[in-house]
Amino acid sequence: MIVTLAGGVGAARMLAGLVQVVDPDHLTAVVNVGDDLVLHGLHISPDLDTVTYTLAGAINTETGWGLTGETWQARDMVERYGGVSWFGLGDRDLGTHLYRTQRLSEGADLATVTAEITAAWDLGLRVVPVTCDPLRTMVTLAADDPEGPGSPGLPAGSEIGFQEYFVQRHHSVPVASVRIAGADAARPTPGVLDAIAGADAVVVAPSNPIVSIGPVLAVPGVREAVTARREQVVAVSPIVAGAALKGPADRMLTELGHEASVVGVARLYAPFAGTLVIDEADADRVDEVEAEGLRCVVTPTVMRSPETAAALARATLAAVGVATEPAP
Amino acid sequence: MIVTLAGGVGAARMLAGLVQVVDPDHLTAVVNVGDDLVLHGLHISPDLDTVTYTLAGAINTETGWGLTGETWQARDMVERYGGVSWFGLGDRDLGTHLYRTQRLSEGADLATVTAEITAAWDLGLRVVPVTCDPLRTMVTLAADDPEGPGSPGLPAGSEIGFQEYFVQRHHSVPVASVRIAGADAARPTPGVLDAIAGADAVVVAPSNPIVSIGPVLAVPGVREAVTARREQVVAVSPIVAGAALKGPADRMLTELGHEASVVGVARLYAPFAGTLVIDEADADRVDEVEAEGLRCVVTPTVMRSPETAAALARATLAAVGVATEPAP
Repeated sequence: MIVTLAGGVGAARMLAGLVQVVDPDHLTAVVNVGDDLVLHGLHISPDLDTVTYTLAGAINTETGWGLTGETWQARDMVERYGGVSWFGLGDRDLGTHLYRTQRLSEGADLATVTAEITAAWDLGLRVVPVTCDPLRTMVTLAADDPEGPGSPGLPAGSEIGFQEYFVQRHHSVPVASVRIAGADAARPTPGVLDAIAGADAVVVAPSNPIVSIGPVLAVPGVREAVTARREQVVAVSPIVAGAALKGPADRMLTELGHEASVVGVARLYAPFAGTLVIDEADADRVDEVEAEGLRCVVTPTVMRSPETAAALARATLAAVGVATEPAP
Repeated sequence: MIVTLAGGVGAARMLAGLVQVVDPDHLTAVVNVGDDLVLHGLHISPDLDTVTYTLAGAINTETGWGLTGETWQARDMVERYGGVSWFGLGDRDLGTHLYRTQRLSEGADLATVTAEITAAWDLGLRVVPVTCDPLRTMVTLAADDPEGPGSPGLPAGSEIGFQEYFVQRHHSVPVASVRIAGADAARPTPGVLDAIAGADAVVVAPSNPIVSIGPVLAVPGVREAVTARREQVVAVSPIVAGAALKGPADRMLTELGHEASVVGVARLYAPFAGTLVIDEADADRVDEVEAEGLRCVVTPTVMRSPETAAALARATLAAVGVATEPAP
């Protein structure tokens, strides 16, 4: 079994590589739910959906989120009413949120609903929210954020939900701190700790260390379970040549006092990961990475195509001695 | 001021007639919310929306509910997941429910949200839910209902929500009783009792007496306020020649021990309405209606066109001595 700790877009691409090189039946994605939000009464799980839609081959490749063939009739109507429209909910995507919310209201837990949704997309791998309990990544602003189109002004020190930071404010305001609300009381989804304990490899996907991998590890027991398997834990750096491929990971690392580089990532991950995979662009920093106490593997990590994602998956698993299926 | 007690389709057509013959600024629709439901986490108010969409000229004329130019992408996705899809939610219509649910979650009451929605559609008249508190029309089945496509079987004596009876089971099962849950604790929306008290006319629209007008009158204070204005209260019979123009009103009246005729309607309405407007098809029953203690007015009541709706509105108001604007 391969367990992957996953955020959204980067993790989804990595998983799309992994399913090409190992039997999807032996693959479990443990997904961040700190990004989840309730909007318009609907329970929205952006990372679960990005992983699901990507692996279903149904992701909107133009945006990197949402579904192909999407229309925006509901959003247009919300805008007519002057309602909250900063979080883009396409009509097809809404169907997922409607279903999820209805099932949760009937008493199903998020893991059950996620299994139902992924089954409807014929995904081979298991996609599991790290917890079925409420987990909310909260961001405290380091500076005043002026009023913008669709977002009210906020003073420095304000704490807002992750999506208000990420989507509503386009992650354009510096961050003073990040808090994973609900983490203390959250219980790992049944099976997650056992999956980690029994995994041949635990892959930390190239996701934001603070707000994607952070909430996964913040669920009590998960960090400990991962740390216990440190030799089999291999992380892929989401930072390439000092920059995030997508999103604010680089700025956020700097703002929170870390180094926005593979070395900064190595420092964060060394306590629980035995190996860090870094991009060829960072080949000159191998010694610094290894000085943090991890093995370092250099390979192309930018997943521009299914082939490069498969190659990265292969190199990542090879780094912890897991055999992969030959290229077809 | 003209106050209209309103259900869905029939009331919406009547209101579309009234706005042609009186200044819409002097028109208030007090609308049933016993049909409301929460589905997929969304607060859905079918009668408020039918009234709003009809008066906006945006009703789907093929179905009689929902919006023109509708698409069904969200529903198709819910169906992919095997979710609840018996209640037809079009993508545009969803925008209304998303907005309403979000505003309610922010603490706005249903009357405020309804005012915002109707303002966005540029409706001239006031559309007011009879109460902002939860009101739920519950139906107890008089017979076993076999399992159908999309609806589980239920034994006689089961109590289900109105939409489960009306939409999910296509009102195909006999009814033993109707209960307006929440009525005891519901408070009339502020302004409703005053509007009735000060109205030049109170029009009871041609809606189902039991499940559309019934819940409106069940809100404490409303029946009393209407009864106090009995001389100015004029009802339009929803039963024409022994049949409902739409929906199960005729069968339901019979099942609940009433007569499915203008005389049966007269018996139900006589305590609070001074006048009943009946269709020409029932002209031979004027004496029987008047024997119930109401004045009876005979006029075409089937609203096949805007012109016939305007003529009905004119005749209805004339019956209680309210002058209308001349035809343009």
